[in-house]
Amino acid sequence: MNGIELPKGFQTAGIAVGIKKDSEKDLALLFSTVPAFVAATFTCNNVRAAPVQLSQKHLAYPIGSAIVVNSGIANACTGAQGERAALRMAQVTAGALDLVLEEVFVCSTGSIGPQLPLDKIERGIPKLVEQLSADNLAPAAKAIMTTDTKPKAAFRELKLGGKKIRLTGLAKGSGMIEPNMATMLAFIMTDAPVAREPLQEALKGAVDKSFNRISVDGDQSTNDSVICLANGMAGGGVLEPDSEGWPAFQAALEDLTRDLAMQIVRDGEGVSRTVNVRVEGALSHADADLASRAVANSLLNKTAWAGTRANWGRIMAALGYSGARLRAERVNIDYSELPVVRNGVAVNLDQDRLAEIVSGDHFDININLSLGAGRAVVYSCNCTEEYVRINI
Amino acid sequence: MNGIELPKGFQTAGIAVGIKKDSEKDLALLFSTVPAFVAATFTCNNVRAAPVQLSQKHLAYPIGSAIVVNSGIANACTGAQGERAALRMAQVTAGALDLVLEEVFVCSTGSIGPQLPLDKIERGIPKLVEQLSADNLAPAAKAIMTTDTKPKAAFRELKLGGKKIRLTGLAKGSGMIEPNMATMLAFIMTDAPVAREPLQEALKGAVDKSFNRISVDGDQSTNDSVICLANGMAGGGVLEPDSEGWPAFQAALEDLTRDLAMQIVRDGEGVSRTVNVRVEGALSHADADLASRAVANSLLNKTAWAGTRANWGRIMAALGYSGARLRAERVNIDYSELPVVRNGVAVNLDQDRLAEIVSGDHFDININLSLGAGRAVVYSCNCTEEYVRINI
Repeated sequence: MNGIELPKGFQTAGIAVGIKKDSEKDLALLFSTVPAFVAATFTCNNVRAAPVQLSQKHLAYPIGSAIVVNSGIANACTGAQGERAALRMAQVTAGALDLVLEEVFVCSTGSIGPQLPLDKIERGIPKLVEQLSADNLAPAAKAIMTTDTKPKAAFRELKLGGKKIRLTGLAKGSGMIEPNMATMLAFIMTDAPVAREPLQEALKGAVDKSFNRISVDGDQSTNDSVICLANGMAGGGVLEPDSEGWPAFQAALEDLTRDLAMQIVRDGEGVSRTVNVRVEGALSHADADLASRAVANSLLNKTAWAGTRANWGRIMAALGYSGARLRAERVNIDYSELPVVRNGVAVNLDQDRLAEIVSGDHFDININLSLGAGRAVVYSCNCTEEYVRINI
Repeated sequence: MNGIELPKGFQTAGIAVGIKKDSEKDLALLFSTVPAFVAATFTCNNVRAAPVQLSQKHLAYPIGSAIVVNSGIANACTGAQGERAALRMAQVTAGALDLVLEEVFVCSTGSIGPQLPLDKIERGIPKLVEQLSADNLAPAAKAIMTTDTKPKAAFRELKLGGKKIRLTGLAKGSGMIEPNMATMLAFIMTDAPVAREPLQEALKGAVDKSFNRISVDGDQSTNDSVICLANGMAGGGVLEPDSEGWPAFQAALEDLTRDLAMQIVRDGEGVSRTVNVRVEGALSHADADLASRAVANSLLNKTAWAGTRANWGRIMAALGYSGARLRAERVNIDYSELPVVRNGVAVNLDQDRLAEIVSGDHFDININLSLGAGRAVVYSCNCTEEYVRINI
């Protein structure tokens, strides 16, 4: 967590209460000492975990102050008992922090099915509150991890009208990752004085360009949530879309969320190589989206990217079944800067350079359908034997 | 190929011409010595290999007599040169067998991108014709294989109006397999006296219930083709939908294609366990289709099935993002005969029995959405480390 500070008025904590094994941290709290505006986006999955349902309800309340998060058990598919557990987590946290119930957001991540050990969590929350501090981010980042191998945090600072504004983000997620808010949690704290509705718009825009453009395995989870608290402690005039500082704030938020999203892909289960799949020249943005996701999620492509051969034919096949309108004889594909396919057929090329590109830690696949102006990108990664071992 | 005979009037052959390494067989010919009616279904992929495009054209001709197939190179994404190669394969075969060009169907399977060694194929075709025999099925079955570990053939015999009718099928396919005619070839020869249009209808129905219900990795290929030749040599009255023998013929055809389809799943790349995913109680058949495919294609489910734990939460998550309408609290899931989820939550169950079920060579996942009468099944399989190794 080097160089990562909390914005003014925020405190965090993370402890172990025994949900995970081996005394690993599994309960985190993020707290704004003054009431904050809240923006959030949640999973599109029709099977939504109890804490997601509760947090969605609390988003209707005008302000928020705290996010309590457990890892190890997702509290999903847990019926009425699970709903009570999520509610109790919010109630006990609200009680300990002297908040209105609706000011508390609840998130869970981990296995689907088991019930939470509610007694351990209820006993843990007061201890968690005791640990709250403006200088205690690392334990919180750890306590939200599941199969993540690294804690994920990002920080941006900008000056608007002489005021220093900070944005600090935490995220988790490494498997069951696919665009549309899938198995990941991200929390953004900022002291920016943003109005409520613009904050929601800005967050949604940033999420669409970051977390919704990453893909590890094409599976969407029951628990994904991105929650942003903005407490205004930086001072200065209220930030709204027509404010002078708005573009800078929005850019910082997008930059922060993309940073967190890329940390998630790089730490994807078993991932040894990241691949950005860019499609342009599609007849529409929707077509470009279909095409880029089909390539990025194709298991044959993801396993090819675990090796050292380009196998561009699998890209052509995925484009063909993607649903995007295309004419095979117009498709051009570059691997990073190297032209590999022109007009749908192989280019005579420097095979050594191609092998070098696809053997690196990262490369780009740039696809041009040569039909229109639609474009899209997916931040993807390879699928290795290690992925299978992790998920068996 | 024990116990598998060719129907009357059919001959086959398979030889090595040097497309594949190590003198492996790579060129096959299937021939009806009398003109036959032809029915066929082809890949839905928008990127279609040259031989698929040619065969689709030839299907407009009223009769057919031969199918020439090479393995090792797919002749896909090969531009004008590839089109010429597919055409030459048909021309040389037609010349050697004294047929009209349109009576010859061409199939290719293997790597996408490289050009065919046309000279080797042209020199090979006359040799292939010399090898044609009514007792030479095994070499043809081998010559169409790519990463298949076993040749795939099936045979059905039935008596209609005192006449013995035979159906013999060959298939290949083990990776890039997903419903909708994806990376597989299947050829069905029958001496049944079926009229042309009913044959196409019957084949389409059978393919929808067999090859279009299997899934190995969710990838669809550029080359899939199922071609059926019916030469009428069995004699007897013409079989049409209102014939007395029609249901028996249709049932035999469906049974044969399902047999071949299951052989493909069992021989899927790296597959060590097959899983039939059945959904019932959906609001529509389309919803059941979405739900069963989402579960069957979920990488997290497929890797779970490589292990020995049930992980039913991943099924719930996949149902949730499938697009099928559902209410989580109505979902019931059985593993083979064992109830595991009732009303969306875990059942108290015999964990030893569950472990035993999911550790076997095959199990069923029976999902009831408890909303309507829609039903569907996908014949799926696990995804192992071996799959990744094969496709790297």
